[in-house]
Amino acid sequence: MRYLMVFSYDGSKYYGYQKQPNKNSVQAEIERVLTIINSNNKVKINASGRTDSGVHALNQKAHFDLIKQISCEKLRNSVNKMLPSSIYIKEIKETEEDFHARFNVFKKEYTYKINVGEYSPIDCNYIYQYNKPLDIKKMQEASTYMIGEHDFTSFTKGNEEKESFVRNIYSINIENINDIISITFCGSGFLRYMVRNMVGSLIEVGNGLRKPKDIQKILRAKDRTKAGITAPACGLYLSNVFYKN
Amino acid sequence: MRYLMVFSYDGSKYYGYQKQPNKNSVQAEIERVLTIINSNNKVKINASGRTDSGVHALNQKAHFDLIKQISCEKLRNSVNKMLPSSIYIKEIKETEEDFHARFNVFKKEYTYKINVGEYSPIDCNYIYQYNKPLDIKKMQEASTYMIGEHDFTSFTKGNEEKESFVRNIYSINIENINDIISITFCGSGFLRYMVRNMVGSLIEVGNGLRKPKDIQKILRAKDRTKAGITAPACGLYLSNVFYKN
Repeated sequence: MRYLMVFSYDGSKYYGYQKQPNKNSVQAEIERVLTIINSNNKVKINASGRTDSGVHALNQKAHFDLIKQISCEKLRNSVNKMLPSSIYIKEIKETEEDFHARFNVFKKEYTYKINVGEYSPIDCNYIYQYNKPLDIKKMQEASTYMIGEHDFTSFTKGNEEKESFVRNIYSINIENINDIISITFCGSGFLRYMVRNMVGSLIEVGNGLRKPKDIQKILRAKDRTKAGITAPACGLYLSNVFYKN
Repeated sequence: MRYLMVFSYDGSKYYGYQKQPNKNSVQAEIERVLTIINSNNKVKINASGRTDSGVHALNQKAHFDLIKQISCEKLRNSVNKMLPSSIYIKEIKETEEDFHARFNVFKKEYTYKINVGEYSPIDCNYIYQYNKPLDIKKMQEASTYMIGEHDFTSFTKGNEEKESFVRNIYSINIENINDIISITFCGSGFLRYMVRNMVGSLIEVGNGLRKPKDIQKILRAKDRTKAGITAPACGLYLSNVFYKN
């Protein structure tokens, strides 16, 4: 039986989503628990994508198979009881045998949070502590040049081998509530470090180092060195994953 | 020279504010750094009061003496550079030689945060995860019986030896924003566990276990066993300390 689950986690407690030798990961924790429930038959979960070390998730999604059918609510409660407090299964439902949580992704949403007010020791693993003002109007203008179908080579990790660096950004929403700037990106998919690199360049527009129109030049250059810094992982949240149906 | 400082900290990273043998504490971290700055002459900081393990502070205040006069802004920057990211000095200013950060307290403010929505792995060390609805109107009614001068024996730790258990609560403000209930207590001073015990009884009013008027009976009983549970430390913030002048 194939299941689809929605889950959230505190990325500051893990070396990333993906399982790796000798390092803790979100995937390893969940697989450990599901394997126990599956009468010790090894369970592999397939997520919509990985998140890097320190990156959080509000609605990550993954599919997995169990040898027997279990009531979804009972399964969810059992798994949550055995998981550490830093991971939480929000929902589990049965899905088709050919559903794939990564291949079937239609749209993904990421949110990046920046504190432009005073440093907060309480939020420092959850909000990037920039602690200086940023011109949100200029950032909004800059973000319009990122929207649409573009080759995002300038905003990804240099050494990645990919068939295509073209992605479609549907929307970017930037707001400031009580000195916390939230930037929400919605798109067809995202390359490695792409959101953090886009945020880095938006910050450099917000602080006056670059002009909003520079984003166009950066995109055209298809050269990572032309863009700004990579914003730290702690401010990034995988906020939603959408499937067609 | 005597200095007064305002600081914030993430209580989840410490065994409480107060220095103890073989356990890390906020006080020990700050004293270690100030002692280095004071040419290795031991510095003791005197806070407005201690906070228990897991309790956070947004504006804790403390005084300390240094053998020489240092520019306050320079001092603040040096201390922040040497402190861990979980403690932050917001302000340092010179004060009178007879000022005392505990004895001179005029008013204190605590805030308690409760998540009545879905469990959040990201906030679980910073907001009490109650994750069930609470009737905020009943809690507000109950809180009115706590306001004013009362003997708070029923809301403190049983075995404490104190001259007096009488305290004056000036105001209690309860609001719900996006399923996070914040309860802000302002008073002349607070006994050990008093805020967490008051919150515990307010929760038991909010979930229907007790009636708002029961608070009057609990206060009159002067008996800890008559009140509700002690709410967990993670939701509590020392939010402000006020001095006359």
